[in-house]
Amino acid sequence: MSKPVILVLGAGAGIGGHVAARFAREGYHAVLARRSDGEGLQRLVSAIKTNGDSATGMLVDASDDGAIEDMVARIESEIGPIDTALYNLGAQIGNRALSDTPHRTFELGWRLGCYGLFRLAHAMFPAMVERGKGTLLVTSATAAVRGNAGQHSHAAAMGGRRMLCQSLNAEFAPKGIHVAHVVVDGAVNAPDTLGRMLGDTFEAYKASKGEDGVLDPAAVAESYWHLAQQPRNAWTHELDLRPWSDVPWWNDNPVAG
Amino acid sequence: MSKPVILVLGAGAGIGGHVAARFAREGYHAVLARRSDGEGLQRLVSAIKTNGDSATGMLVDASDDGAIEDMVARIESEIGPIDTALYNLGAQIGNRALSDTPHRTFELGWRLGCYGLFRLAHAMFPAMVERGKGTLLVTSATAAVRGNAGQHSHAAAMGGRRMLCQSLNAEFAPKGIHVAHVVVDGAVNAPDTLGRMLGDTFEAYKASKGEDGVLDPAAVAESYWHLAQQPRNAWTHELDLRPWSDVPWWNDNPVAG
Amino acid sequence: MSKPVILVLGAGAGIGGHVAARFAREGYHAVLARRSDGEGLQRLVSAIKTNGDSATGMLVDASDDGAIEDMVARIESEIGPIDTALYNLGAQIGNRALSDTPHRTFELGWRLGCYGLFRLAHAMFPAMVERGKGTLLVTSATAAVRGNAGQHSHAAAMGGRRMLCQSLNAEFAPKGIHVAHVVVDGAVNAPDTLGRMLGDTFEAYKASKGEDGVLDPAAVAESYWHLAQQPRNAWTHELDLRPWSDVPWWNDNPVAG
Amino acid sequence: MSKPVILVLGAGAGIGGHVAARFAREGYHAVLARRSDGEGLQRLVSAIKTNGDSATGMLVDASDDGAIEDMVARIESEIGPIDTALYNLGAQIGNRALSDTPHRTFELGWRLGCYGLFRLAHAMFPAMVERGKGTLLVTSATAAVRGNAGQHSHAAAMGGRRMLCQSLNAEFAPKGIHVAHVVVDGAVNAPDTLGRMLGDTFEAYKASKGEDGVLDPAAVAESYWHLAQQPRNAWTHELDLRPWSDVPWWNDNPVAG
Repeated sequence: MSKPVILVLGAGAGIGGHVAARFAREGYHAVLARRSDGEGLQRLVSAIKTNGDSATGMLVDASDDGAIEDMVARIESEIGPIDTALYNLGAQIGNRALSDTPHRTFELGWRLGCYGLFRLAHAMFPAMVERGKGTLLVTSATAAVRGNAGQHSHAAAMGGRRMLCQSLNAEFAPKGIHVAHVVVDGAVNAPDTLGRMLGDTFEAYKASKGEDGVLDPAAVAESYWHLAQQPRNAWTHELDLRPWSDVPWWNDNPVAG
Repeated sequence: MSKPVILVLGAGAGIGGHVAARFAREGYHAVLARRSDGEGLQRLVSAIKTNGDSATGMLVDASDDGAIEDMVARIESEIGPIDTALYNLGAQIGNRALSDTPHRTFELGWRLGCYGLFRLAHAMFPAMVERGKGTLLVTSATAAVRGNAGQHSHAAAMGGRRMLCQSLNAEFAPKGIHVAHVVVDGAVNAPDTLGRMLGDTFEAYKASKGEDGVLDPAAVAESYWHLAQQPRNAWTHELDLRPWSDVPWWNDNPVAG
Repeated sequence: MSKPVILVLGAGAGIGGHVAARFAREGYHAVLARRSDGEGLQRLVSAIKTNGDSATGMLVDASDDGAIEDMVARIESEIGPIDTALYNLGAQIGNRALSDTPHRTFELGWRLGCYGLFRLAHAMFPAMVERGKGTLLVTSATAAVRGNAGQHSHAAAMGGRRMLCQSLNAEFAPKGIHVAHVVVDGAVNAPDTLGRMLGDTFEAYKASKGEDGVLDPAAVAESYWHLAQQPRNAWTHELDLRPWSDVPWWNDNPVAG
Repeated sequence: MSKPVILVLGAGAGIGGHVAARFAREGYHAVLARRSDGEGLQRLVSAIKTNGDSATGMLVDASDDGAIEDMVARIESEIGPIDTALYNLGAQIGNRALSDTPHRTFELGWRLGCYGLFRLAHAMFPAMVERGKGTLLVTSATAAVRGNAGQHSHAAAMGGRRMLCQSLNAEFAPKGIHVAHVVVDGAVNAPDTLGRMLGDTFEAYKASKGEDGVLDPAAVAESYWHLAQQPRNAWTHELDLRPWSDVPWWNDNPVAG
């Protein structure tokens, strides 16, 4: 297969699915991987194919030993060299007081939020280094740049993720691999994650944010596409994304100064 | 005139000129403003027109009282509503010990690096607010995020610039104005600024940085174009840009940890 | 005179006055400088002397050409070598929309918030370098690390101040001068500044913050004293200070994550 | 026992041991916990007792399930309420390329660098909340604020640690618990860690840094003591510490600007 491959780890109906479709539309073969809901996955893959583009779906539990490594090996040998990967797994569990955050929860947050990214890079970068190029896009969150009440697990995982991205960039940018860390600093119109978390209140929540008040995953995918197309003389390592009407993470009450 | 207008303040042969040309190519009327070198300015304007696109050149000394204000008023009344502005004036004077940084130099750095941006926003935003939309792109530098030896004037100006951008964003994003602060964290292949500073050693310097080792202003302009096209549900306030082989500002000796 | 000298520029009844008294109590000669209110100044000086300690008061308008320079020269020649200086001048003008922030206001903010610090270092550091030691403490604010609505003037001045402190540190720490930037991230119980701003509502404001809910300037002075005593093998360049019950600048609504 | 208790987790001959001794000298009972080297531990405890102060030693492997929890319970029931704890466990393994960083190493880095701190807070904070006060000091590193080549494991652990500290602070500061994150941004004169890592070259390394060129753990302990004594109206959440002659993490080559 001669198409460049994009691997999306965490391919739901939000950012992941839209990035896969966006790259497929440009001639990539999109590999969509997610933990569960084979039917949902199949719908995303079919939508891409119906469009005349090219995609494969895989059910992968990234927290299983060897699962990420096997997936990378399989794609490289059966589908083609991975040109771009998107690490799109979250570790958000809503707000939990420390006493409501069991050890297991904290550990799982790290497994998905930080360790999985390390494992993906570990498995995927050697071939990219050999080819002298590759891109790793990482969806991240406000919690990567500041901790907050109720975010013990999420912030620890995301803070580790951000520092890991800087470490990967330091070693691998000079080898031709572009690592980009995207701080998604607002609610995304994603039925599989935010939608599931909010349930029946999802539509009311979106309405409460006003016009264009939540991030459209298609718009987010556009910025990911831009990042992946930057020539190596002008790479972005980090950018933030939020709706116009949202308060950025560094601002709170304007009165406080 | 029905074309949207982009105003580039600091339109030399580097980022400024390339952004003007990039937007003109997409159907904007580009207004290129710079302090001096009317011939160089004319060459940039002519190149855009030769391409079949639309541009105007203006000589403006941004440090003059009223100059920025007059320029904005003149463009709005004679050319058309400003859709996007790029503040591209620098305050870099090379490395100077504190004792070699006279009061006048420090003040001039602030006038160009910070005060001019305030004045541009002050003059231009009211009409944008009335129209409910507009974009202000700001070229910034490493010195906006960390001070360094020899950078007393430059870092003070750029640090003020960055905090001003956040303040402008906080007040005006909810009114539809997109403010984006671009941390250019590497050398730009710009004959009018870096080229003039380095003189005869410019080519040798670029060669020393290796292949794709300096930022190509056309590539930078591509990211500016992307920023200006982001729909308001997914705005970026800050991103960094550097060549693949450059060490990011937050890294120094890898041994230090 | 053989006592070490501390110069406090911006010596009101809040942080400035308390730092002066704290250092005087340890055997320093405190020079208290402020722009106006000679009576208030005299009260502070007298209180220190009544304690058996040593102090001088000076009325100085830091925004006047030459005023800072003359003050430094006069202290060095008439009182003694400046061991430690505290730059405690503010640029806070309350929250002002951009349209309510005239050019003059923005410039004055910079003159007090940033340029004055540059001038103090410019005038004072040569002698400190010759002596191989000295300390410059800088009171700073939340606006130095993040801009916000209504803070155009204040944040631009404070952001410049912070980057200037890093630049000064980079050149002068290796010459034995300790530069420390203190992010005061909360309201200070200071009658001359916050008190004047709030007027009749000052006491109600403090009560609304709860027990220990505003920064006690005596407690702040204790941390300044600690900074100034750190041996040069373990210097702090930046620390934050806020009341226990205050939300740090990087946190807003805990629900947002 | 009526003395307030300080628990030092990671009590070697460097920062940990010096903090224990410093607090003991002020009337605390110091509990020194470390993983191995019972003899070294005993020497530290004896030195404190010889001074007429009060201390207990414990061998604890913080990566064992239940070990931190048991230790906290035992101290609270057998020795006394923990007033202050210092989390001083490191995750530094020197510089390792990604390919030389096995999964196990990365996980262990997290267990010691991040998860252990979560477990300590989880076990210790409920009693502190009930008492309405307590202090958690956290020794951290440059890698908490920026990743770097070779630091994949260390930076991911420390970045998580920093965001966890902010999350703990957000929930527990308003309940009277002071969480302080100390960015140790330089080499510490610590025979048990840096000394062991450098072996025979330790003395030469220190000499190469010049006079006062490495952090003296006694000086560091002085700043920890200051942090723990701050009244709750003026708490510091984060400060940095480095030798005067060291380049701060945010600076590299002054030429680069």
